[in-house]
Amino acid sequence: MFRHVVLFRWTEDATDEDKERVARELRALPETISEIRAYHVGHDAGVNQGNYEFAVVADFDDTAGYLVYRDHPAHRAVIDKYINPYVAARAAVQYEL
Amino acid sequence: MFRHVVLFRWTEDATDEDKERVARELRALPETISEIRAYHVGHDAGVNQGNYEFAVVADFDDTAGYLVYRDHPAHRAVIDKYINPYVAARAAVQYEL
Repeated sequence: MFRHVVLFRWTEDATDEDKERVARELRALPETISEIRAYHVGHDAGVNQGNYEFAVVADFDDTAGYLVYRDHPAHRAVIDKYINPYVAARAAVQYEL
Repeated sequence: MFRHVVLFRWTEDATDEDKERVARELRALPETISEIRAYHVGHDAGVNQGNYEFAVVADFDDTAGYLVYRDHPAHRAVIDKYINPYVAARAAVQYEL
């Protein structure tokens, strides 16, 4: 398995609705991108200070499956319309499970 | 389920052995900390530029299980001895699955 992890911090002008829309739009992607094996996104629970605000953890059979997701038009549309306008910081890793 | 995600960038003086030791020491923790339900750590695969270098994704039944892990002496010892000396950047999120 091949795992993609990305964490975000949002800009100060991002509203709660903007943040919830990111989660909603991403959660619809597994219906469209069949290479996704597991997909869990969520807002930081507020347990620790200094955290990022939002997480995406997505699993694929292999690197090729991840690349289909990364470059899929439905995913790019969510990134361009709903994520990029509000990104203050981004941290990502892909790794073999 | 409650998921903990943390990504690291290492300092320039961290050797490959230092980085591999972090992975090895962390992977031993599920034997000691019974609250861990799933635990996958790994080095960035090098697919994308600008990534962080190392990921930890850990799943627990609930927030209480995560807190046991967070504060467990065996975990704190790994952080103090093998992680903190080499951290250049850290990004974390905990969220409900």
